[in-house]
Amino acid sequence: MASAPSIPPPSAPPSPWLPFESRRRARDEKREAVLRAAVQLFLEQGYHRVTLNEVADRLNITKPALYNYFRGKDEILFECWSMGAELVDSVITEIAAGGGSGLARLRKLVHAYAALMATDFGASLVRFDLRDLAERNAGVARAAKKRIDATFRRYIAAGIADGSIRPCDPKLAAFAIAGSLNWIGHWYRRDGGLSPTEIADEFTVRLTEGLATESRQKIAKKTPRAPQGRNSGRKTTGTKRTGGGTG
Amino acid sequence: MASAPSIPPPSAPPSPWLPFESRRRARDEKREAVLRAAVQLFLEQGYHRVTLNEVADRLNITKPALYNYFRGKDEILFECWSMGAELVDSVITEIAAGGGSGLARLRKLVHAYAALMATDFGASLVRFDLRDLAERNAGVARAAKKRIDATFRRYIAAGIADGSIRPCDPKLAAFAIAGSLNWIGHWYRRDGGLSPTEIADEFTVRLTEGLATESRQKIAKKTPRAPQGRNSGRKTTGTKRTGGGTG
Repeated sequence: MASAPSIPPPSAPPSPWLPFESRRRARDEKREAVLRAAVQLFLEQGYHRVTLNEVADRLNITKPALYNYFRGKDEILFECWSMGAELVDSVITEIAAGGGSGLARLRKLVHAYAALMATDFGASLVRFDLRDLAERNAGVARAAKKRIDATFRRYIAAGIADGSIRPCDPKLAAFAIAGSLNWIGHWYRRDGGLSPTEIADEFTVRLTEGLATESRQKIAKKTPRAPQGRNSGRKTTGTKRTGGGTG
Repeated sequence: MASAPSIPPPSAPPSPWLPFESRRRARDEKREAVLRAAVQLFLEQGYHRVTLNEVADRLNITKPALYNYFRGKDEILFECWSMGAELVDSVITEIAAGGGSGLARLRKLVHAYAALMATDFGASLVRFDLRDLAERNAGVARAAKKRIDATFRRYIAAGIADGSIRPCDPKLAAFAIAGSLNWIGHWYRRDGGLSPTEIADEFTVRLTEGLATESRQKIAKKTPRAPQGRNSGRKTTGTKRTGGGTG
């Protein structure tokens, strides 16, 4: 995502675009200030209880001024949600560029996503009800959610294929991990005594250690891996009881 | 929870309470039918979008008839929520009566809670917004949530104390587990190809295997356990890489 140059090189003549560019940036900053105020209010009070007057009051502007930036409350909701989704997308783009095993990429995603859930825009991904959006925007949001879910599954499947993750059902494993992560958006409080990084570190270990083959490889002292049939990872090392757990 | 006897012993005279008792039961059944219809509508459409007329329509009764059972929409919401909470409470009561190690009790709770999340009343525990309740009821609901959370933590702490669970932060471990479980209430669909039991079986393994000491004990061939300092479980067996996972 290239950003437009803001300062011309020393010898160049002043850009004819600068005034436009700086107006655009000022507008973007005001727009984002609206979103930051709105997302806080929506999270604190719930979308249905917040009025646009309250959003305007928090920014010391008038309600009509809000309409310079957004057409209505549900558009603001969607734009808050989109801020969160864009942060996840940029994390995924970065991880894709970095390469690594399926397990390594999964761990990076878990870590970044956990930290994001402790931010307002990140929490909005899981605490807003998509049914409050206009149908077109709800469709965009559902597609983004599917993309994120598919990325978790893809990393798990890649890890199974490259031997870094032991055989499992990528769909259920992804749901289990995403559930723990999304829940952070519900319980995290800034004054709760845990920093986003501490939570991200802990969850990265906790949510991926059961999937990793590496400890098993160490246990087996780097003996050749058994063929990759379902459950072969378990049988190879035979160190975990994996019974139903209800008895 | 003792239930009132419905059938008198063969030789006893008919109970003077029977007519009252059967009227009470008929009333309870109608009341529960209202809750079943309401919880479905609330989950399908979102609480704020559902009208009491729609609830009445689904039951082929009139809206005023609903007021025989409930004072208003938010009381219906609370009673749906309470049905879910009572199911969890009865699970916890049963587990407490059964005894077992901390890990065994944790697994029973995970299994039962996962299956519950795939029911309408169970899902209502995590998909309704407590801020929609009257303040007194919201307080009751928050206390019930805390009780459930405390039970997860207590089983984990008990497991650490009895050696069935390796040393960890019970609060974060409970959040990670509860998050995965609560998320089931968001993604589960009856037509999704997985039964509640299949999900419960899989999640019981997946969410507790990383906590269990038993595999490590097997690895260490029942060597005596190291003293129970924090992380001593990890050091004793030394088989897991527990690094941040973002590198």
